[in-house]
Amino acid sequence: MGLLVLGTVALDHVKTPSGTKKGMLGGSAAHFSMSARLFDDVHMVGVVGTDFPKLHLDFLKRKGINTASVSIVPGKTFRWNGEYKADDLNSAITLETEIGVLDAYAPQLTEQQKNMGHIFLANLAPAVQERLLKIVKKPQLVGLDTMNLWINTALKDLKRLMKNVDLMILNDGESRMLTGERNIVVAAKALRAMGPCVVVIKKGEHGVYVDGGGFRFAYPAYPVERVVDPTGAGDTFAGGFFGYLSKSKKVDEKTLRRAAVYGTVLASFNVEGFGMGRTAPLTMKEIEKRLKDYHHFCALA
Amino acid sequence: MGLLVLGTVALDHVKTPSGTKKGMLGGSAAHFSMSARLFDDVHMVGVVGTDFPKLHLDFLKRKGINTASVSIVPGKTFRWNGEYKADDLNSAITLETEIGVLDAYAPQLTEQQKNMGHIFLANLAPAVQERLLKIVKKPQLVGLDTMNLWINTALKDLKRLMKNVDLMILNDGESRMLTGERNIVVAAKALRAMGPCVVVIKKGEHGVYVDGGGFRFAYPAYPVERVVDPTGAGDTFAGGFFGYLSKSKKVDEKTLRRAAVYGTVLASFNVEGFGMGRTAPLTMKEIEKRLKDYHHFCALA
Repeated sequence: MGLLVLGTVALDHVKTPSGTKKGMLGGSAAHFSMSARLFDDVHMVGVVGTDFPKLHLDFLKRKGINTASVSIVPGKTFRWNGEYKADDLNSAITLETEIGVLDAYAPQLTEQQKNMGHIFLANLAPAVQERLLKIVKKPQLVGLDTMNLWINTALKDLKRLMKNVDLMILNDGESRMLTGERNIVVAAKALRAMGPCVVVIKKGEHGVYVDGGGFRFAYPAYPVERVVDPTGAGDTFAGGFFGYLSKSKKVDEKTLRRAAVYGTVLASFNVEGFGMGRTAPLTMKEIEKRLKDYHHFCALA
Repeated sequence: MGLLVLGTVALDHVKTPSGTKKGMLGGSAAHFSMSARLFDDVHMVGVVGTDFPKLHLDFLKRKGINTASVSIVPGKTFRWNGEYKADDLNSAITLETEIGVLDAYAPQLTEQQKNMGHIFLANLAPAVQERLLKIVKKPQLVGLDTMNLWINTALKDLKRLMKNVDLMILNDGESRMLTGERNIVVAAKALRAMGPCVVVIKKGEHGVYVDGGGFRFAYPAYPVERVVDPTGAGDTFAGGFFGYLSKSKKVDEKTLRRAAVYGTVLASFNVEGFGMGRTAPLTMKEIEKRLKDYHHFCALA
């Protein structure tokens, strides 16, 4: 069946204590796809400008990602220029954002894609996310991510959209902004009351908390000694999580627990390299090896 | 065999979003003991002034805690006056501290206690902690806790002391202060290089990370919806952790994992009430019930 992911496709300029990289392939849809492709067929939906290097698109295709609905339009590709300081690798400092072709973007799908049922709305303006939901014909499982920008500037759109999704993935800071609740257990309940049946709160180095209504669980992050570049870790988590769900074709507690573990493991690879340096070459064998380590790491005696 | 714990015995005035309580029994040794008593015989070592309510001492004794070496000396009991704000229940704001009789305190032990082997040095000036280590005759398992105050004012004493302990329990902020390392995995390694074989880093609502050299593990916190008063949560964790180790008479990986789970569960009760409101009435039956919930909460699928 496969899954459809809508989000940004970006050119990232990133500075971290480990170095500086320019013009990297980035964006929420791209990081999500590079992770989700390990579990299911991924159809990426987004927009780039005519300045977007063909090699990036070829690279995505070579990784098995369907880019038929990545529109190439006149103008500049969305660019993000950010920095992480040594004393807080969890927090990105945005130095510059160029919206470019994202500004007037309306998602397009092929006829085949309009019939797909597993949809992930990666970080993007809620109005654009909503537009995609309107053109798919039989949504079965819809996941949503967002960011502080949209909570600040498009809260009404976001709240309306939340009523129409099954699952929401967001970070702890965003959960607090959206609910006004600092306690994560209470915040997750409040978010569920706003629409999604399943709420997944990412806590970066502190792991993940999931509230599925009748059950809740939390897992620590995989211990990474050298964080090189955290850009896209959240999208990589979401890709592993939703990719696993999509492949499994169910959303029960056991499947959600496994999905959270895969998301956690994928995100740990992501932060170990710049951009997709670690996630793009990944094989299921490496993933299963780290999964085994992780199981031992957080096993109760 | 039992265990010996040295630390503060305090009168706490605490203000939290749930209310204000004055003159509560508190302090590192008291919170530790109230938790550790559920696992092993506890001998508390500390000092109070002549103003210390007899009912608090009677209360400790009724809970089975040996208070033979809680000295009562002329002067005022150590007092802590603190507040927690709704937007960050993890961080105590100290409004006032009265050192009182702690100032000139030198720990005293009975002859029987001098022969005890399991020693926990709860938060107190490192010079006083060290003095206790000098009067015990056969230390077998020595645990250490500290706080930011001593890292700032008595670093040399603390570092010397760290060379002579087996196990150190501290929070993430303290681990960063002591090592200059923000990454908890790296910080724990650095702390082990300073002396203790086992390093336990408490992360409050985010759980606990343990590095035992050949193994490491992390567990999330138990989900508490209403945090009433976090005072003493760290000492309560340490009491459950070290109490379980002391009873088990071994310090292998399996025992340390179980100890961390008991510490986590005990700490979750602590924050649900003011002072020892929740931990003092606790029975093993209630603890085992929550332990079962906790196992389900963080079980991997």
